[in-house]
Parts: sequence; structure tokens; C-alpha cells
Amino acid sequence: MPKINPTRLLNDLKTLRSFGATGPGVVRLSLSPIDLEARRWLAERMSDAGLDASIDGVGNVFGRSRNAGPALLIGSHTDTQPTGGWLDGALGVMFGIEIARALAECDATKHLAVDVASWIDEEGTFAGFLGSRSFVGDSVDDAIRHARNREGTLLADALRQAGIADAPRVRIDTTRHKAYLEPHIEQGGRLEAGGKSIGVVTTIVGIRELTLRFTGQRNHAGTTPMHIRRDAGAALVAFIARMNDAFASLADADTVWTVGRIDLDPGSFSVVPGRADMSLQFRDANAARLEAMERALATLIDEFNAKAGVRVEIIASEPPEQPVVMDHALQTHLADAAEALAPGQWERMPSGASHDAQVIAHHVPACMLFVPSIGGVSHDFIEDTEETHIVLGCEVAARAAANILHALHRDS
Amino acid sequence: MPKINPTRLLNDLKTLRSFGATGPGVVRLSLSPIDLEARRWLAERMSDAGLDASIDGVGNVFGRSRNAGPALLIGSHTDTQPTGGWLDGALGVMFGIEIARALAECDATKHLAVDVASWIDEEGTFAGFLGSRSFVGDSVDDAIRHARNREGTLLADALRQAGIADAPRVRIDTTRHKAYLEPHIEQGGRLEAGGKSIGVVTTIVGIRELTLRFTGQRNHAGTTPMHIRRDAGAALVAFIARMNDAFASLADADTVWTVGRIDLDPGSFSVVPGRADMSLQFRDANAARLEAMERALATLIDEFNAKAGVRVEIIASEPPEQPVVMDHALQTHLADAAEALAPGQWERMPSGASHDAQVIAHHVPACMLFVPSIGGVSHDFIEDTEETHIVLGCEVAARAAANILHALHRDS
Repeated sequence: MPKINPTRLLNDLKTLRSFGATGPGVVRLSLSPIDLEARRWLAERMSDAGLDASIDGVGNVFGRSRNAGPALLIGSHTDTQPTGGWLDGALGVMFGIEIARALAECDATKHLAVDVASWIDEEGTFAGFLGSRSFVGDSVDDAIRHARNREGTLLADALRQAGIADAPRVRIDTTRHKAYLEPHIEQGGRLEAGGKSIGVVTTIVGIRELTLRFTGQRNHAGTTPMHIRRDAGAALVAFIARMNDAFASLADADTVWTVGRIDLDPGSFSVVPGRADMSLQFRDANAARLEAMERALATLIDEFNAKAGVRVEIIASEPPEQPVVMDHALQTHLADAAEALAPGQWERMPSGASHDAQVIAHHVPACMLFVPSIGGVSHDFIEDTEETHIVLGCEVAARAAANILHALHRDS
Repeated sequence: MPKINPTRLLNDLKTLRSFGATGPGVVRLSLSPIDLEARRWLAERMSDAGLDASIDGVGNVFGRSRNAGPALLIGSHTDTQPTGGWLDGALGVMFGIEIARALAECDATKHLAVDVASWIDEEGTFAGFLGSRSFVGDSVDDAIRHARNREGTLLADALRQAGIADAPRVRIDTTRHKAYLEPHIEQGGRLEAGGKSIGVVTTIVGIRELTLRFTGQRNHAGTTPMHIRRDAGAALVAFIARMNDAFASLADADTVWTVGRIDLDPGSFSVVPGRADMSLQFRDANAARLEAMERALATLIDEFNAKAGVRVEIIASEPPEQPVVMDHALQTHLADAAEALAPGQWERMPSGASHDAQVIAHHVPACMLFVPSIGGVSHDFIEDTEETHIVLGCEVAARAAANILHALHRDS
């Protein structure tokens, strides 16, 4: 079995952290000057690892093994949130480079092909999953023409300023790329709470996102008796309580739903709210359950509207994101490697967050491996993972990578 | 009995409306140029009614009868909200002037003394109840030095620009002022809903106003399982449900409570709120019930904090406003007049809104009479009252005024 070099891995991760380091965290927004510096450094690390490295026409850093396929593609992202952590995305990319090096250093595996990618803009500074979408052949030309970052810069202009607008775009080669592995931090507290070191992802959850509006009658809070009020805020609160019951009866332990925002209009002490809006997001690994939750919500809305008083309606909703199941054979390789190196210290779990793997899984068998996040924190400067967990995660991923490639060679 | 002149009353009300008329409503903020014009016109109307009229050092318009006391003081306010109605306040002042005229025109009442006041700034453009507070001898010098309107103008400067800063301030004369009557629009929908024409106010309700803060843990809405969340918004919703039950078990039909504002932090779809604030106001005519509600709230807060998870605390509260009971003998005079002129068409009721009467009631026996608000609307351009209700209200007030003054003469 190939052996990773923990010191080399951690040093490279820490060097990557230095691009945009801000306190314990990192600010490295897609296509910012510091992100472009990091991408050039990353391409060098890939070249040093023996890969043919390039930055493509949307900003993906891609390192192609000189070995013939079948190839395992290992990737994630190195762009960050506006207040990002040092490992969110970066971990998976550096694991990929370290695994490519480790396999190359081992006689039993040096013939195997590991390609490594850092997908641009997973975090959506301009357009979420831009890099992985471009890689699988989704059209990103509209995004390039119209997407802007918070400063108002057009993506097309940012690519031109970066000097890469005319570079070729790396595309998936399904005759070569037979499996995709994305190692990542968990971004939640489940592994830590369960005392586990490794998560083998079963599914990337589906997401529904909508805004509900309650319309009643604005009134004087002193002179309007309770029984004649049409209080939109009180209706919203009552609705959430009913919705919690309805969702809880459908949920399993991994189902989540969140009211992240509430606005009462006009929003003053002395006025009964005439209008109330709330955001609602729910996520689940099971497409049927998401649909059942949608139906339960629709039923609840109908029940509310059948009564006089406050009217409720869905005023906005995002296109549904369907759950994406990880490839079962690849899950088994990860599970076997985890059991070999950390017996009893791993578990299967859904990913509650979105990842590039959900884009790529529609084209190539894909899998994900999680390492624990301290305190379950992510998208925050203080996001962190124990070094022992980082090293163990890379060892498990390297072992699984070797086994996946051996299996691919057997099958081909 | 004195007879009011409905045409004269309505014409005067409509003329007053023309100062600051905006669509069907009125914008006549305290000490604005149009408010000062209206005050000068009002002083003329008082003079024409045979009163010695002046604008005092804070802007009160005061018309003093030349008859000896005991005097009935009739007043309200002629300043408006930023989007005010034409009758809120104005009605009571014009009733006062019409009643002074009607009593002077009747041989049986022409010896009786009715003084009439328009108290400045009831609506708090600079400092709420400024005029009535000054009249009863509360110190308003701090307010004059420090209070500003929305444009940032100091009250002291506004009084100087109005040319009244050095005018004497009218003060209560308890040897003369033996009763206070404030006619007013209801500003709620209770009379209309009950098919009544007149309200006799029993009490001006007390008010508690506070802000509650819920502090949990901000988290990723996808990766944080429900059972380990410390969702401040969900706790707020659960708290309101419990509070509604607790308050409902203490309430009578007139008790009101309002959550007018909710803020979840950070307020986004994908983040479990770490902090949630809500405004809470409750009003009741019964001081003991307000205290019981405060205790119920404190108990609920303790119960929430006894559980782990989200912490709740009161982070701000206004000084309590205690309920103010209207004088029973004066209520009886109003009730008798209402029953004589509108048998069965009146009711006793609390005032859910605040009024100058609550300031003056601490110094002189006070009472209030309500006429219905169409649709219960106030503090809005479309606020209105049927002309028949305006006229009836003035007739009832005039009859009660004569009887109150006759009784005062008998007692003196």
C-alpha cells in the first residue's frame, strides 16, 4: 500500500492557507488576486507531483497524470467564503496531490493514474459550482456573460483580467475518468458528537428553498382587540409550530429544516403586523421525503387559507435540488479503507451541505469522504480539524484510491 | 339644554383639515409652519367663541372663558402623525369650541365656564404629551433643550423660530379647573363591530414594552442535525406560543399583546439563527393584570433558561405606563347623556391608546368620550368617522358638559 507523507501534506496545506490568511481563517474569493496566486502555486505543486498541470479557461486548476487510464479523479475547491476556513475545499485538493505523490512513490501503485482538480468558484462568488459544471459540459457561457461578484465585477471581466479567458476549458473524458473522489471537512458536528474520525458519504442531500408571505391587516396595537386582529406575525408563528409538527412526523434523524429569516411589516412596537415573510429551507437525502414535506406544506397552507383572517402564500422558491446518491461500490472502498485504518471509528452519513461531487456524480461514479470539523463549525474563520484527523483522512483516502484503481484495472 | 350647531362644527373641522391636508388625510406635525398657521386660526376661532385665547410658551392654544369657575376644561390636540387622519385630536378641540359656543348661546348655561385647549405635540414629533405635561406642571425644560424632530431640529430652536419661546406657559389652576373632558375618535374597531355610536371611557390602559433576546448558536443549516441545534429563532417561536397560552389564561376581552418585530441573526436561508430578538408590548386597564403578565413572562423566561440550549433575556424595557382610571362621576354624566340621546347605542370601554387625559387625570378629575372610527383605522390618511357620529358625539358631550358644570356649581 502507498504511504502518504503527513509532514509534506500538512506543510502544503499550511502554505495554501497563507494565501489569503486572515487570523485563523482565510479570505480567498474566486479569481481575486490572492486566489490567482494560490492557483499558480497549486499548479506548481501538481507539476512537482509529476502531473501535467494547467489553469483552464474558467480558472480550474487541473493536474493530469501521465499514466494511462482508467483514472481516479480527486478534487474539491480552493476558493473560500467571504469569511472562510482554511480547510473547506483546500483539504480535498491537497489530499489529491498528496495521494498522487504517494501512489507515484510506491512500486505497487506507480502505474496508476490519479488526476487532481481544484474546481473554481464552488462557493459562488460569481456562480456556484462554475468549475465542476464547466468540466462536465454544462453551459457556463451565460454565467460568464452575466454573473457578477459583490463588487459588481462581471465574471467575463474577471477571467480576462486573470489572463485566462482564452485558455482551453478542461472537459471530462469518460473513457479515462472512471471514478471521482472528493475528500472534505464535514462542516457539521455529527462525527465529533459520535466520537468518529471518518465519514463515508451516502448521499448529498436535496434542498428546497422558498419564501412564505402572510398577509393580514396592519392595526393599532392598543385599540385593536385580540379577537378582531388579523395579525400576520402571530399567524406566521402559529404556522411554524404546525409546520414543525408536520415535518417532525415525516423526518428521520438527518432531515433538517430551517427558518432563517423573519420580517414583520411595519416592524414596530405599537403596530399589529399586516404582513410577515419567512424564509424556509429543508434538506433531506430522500427525494420522496422532500416531496412529502412539500405536500405537507401545501396542505398546511390550504388549511390556513380555508380559515378567514390571514392569508398565506409561497411568493418565491428556488429550483429544487434533488438528492444525489454516492456510488455504492466506491462507498464500499472508502468503508473498507476506513475500517482497516480506523476500525469502528467511522460511519456512513449523508452530506447536509452541497459539493462539486453532486455535479460530477451525474457523469462519473462519485464518492465523498469526511473528516470531523471541530465544534461542527464551518464558513467561519475558526473552522478547524485536528491534525490527526487530517492525516488519518488522507491515509484512508489514499488506501481507498489505490483499491479503487486496482479494481478499475481488473474490470477494464 | 344647549344646542350645538352641526353645520358650524363640521365647517370648522373641515377648515382645520385644510391646514396640512394631504389627500383625505393631514400632515400637520407639531410646530411645523402649517401647524403654527393652524394654531393661529384656532386662537381666532376661540376668540370668536368669546374665549380669551393665546398660544403659550410651548405651543398650547388655550381659550379661557370669561365666566368665573368652576370651569370644565375640554381639550385634545391638533398636531398629527406623519401620516395622520383629519380627526385624531382635532375632533376633541373643535368639540370644545363648539360646546363653549353652544353653552354661551343658551340662557340656562351662558354663565358656565368652559375653557378649551389644544395641547401641543401629543403625537411626539419632539416629545409626546409636551403640552399637557407642561400644563400640569411637569418639568419640560429638559425636553425643550434636548428633544429633536426627525429632521434633527431642536425643540428649543423650533419654539424660538415660532416666536413663542418667551411666551408664558399656561398652567393648571385647580381652584378653577374642576373637571377635564377629552372627546376623541376611538382609533379601534370595537364600537363599529358592536354597532355602537358612543364610547364612555373607563380607563386608559397601562403599557409594558420590552425587547427579548434569544441567544443560541449560529450554524450551517445543512450540516447541523435538528437534535444538536441551538436555534435562536426556533426558540423564539416556541416561546411566543407558550407566552400566548400564558397571557390568554390571564387576559380578559380587552387585554392585548403584540409582537411587532422579529429579527433573526444573520437572517439567511442557509444559516441556523444564532440570535433572535423580538419586541413585546402588552396593554391592559388593570394594573394587577399587567403585573401578573410580567410575572408570567418572568416565569416563562426562567423555565426556558432552566433548559440547556438557547438563553433568553430581556435586553431593553420602557418605563411602565400605569393604567389611568377615568373619574366615575364624570363617566356617569357621559353615560347619562349618551343614554338620553342615543339610548342603547353606547358602551363603556377602555381606551387602548394613550391620550393627554392620562397626564391631566393625575391633577383634575378627567373623562373621555369616543366616537367610532370607520374600519377601526387611525394613524393613516384614510382615518374617518361618519358625520352623524361626529354630530351625535358633540351633542352628547355638550349635554354632559352642561350637566357636569351644573353639578360643579351645586357642589361649590
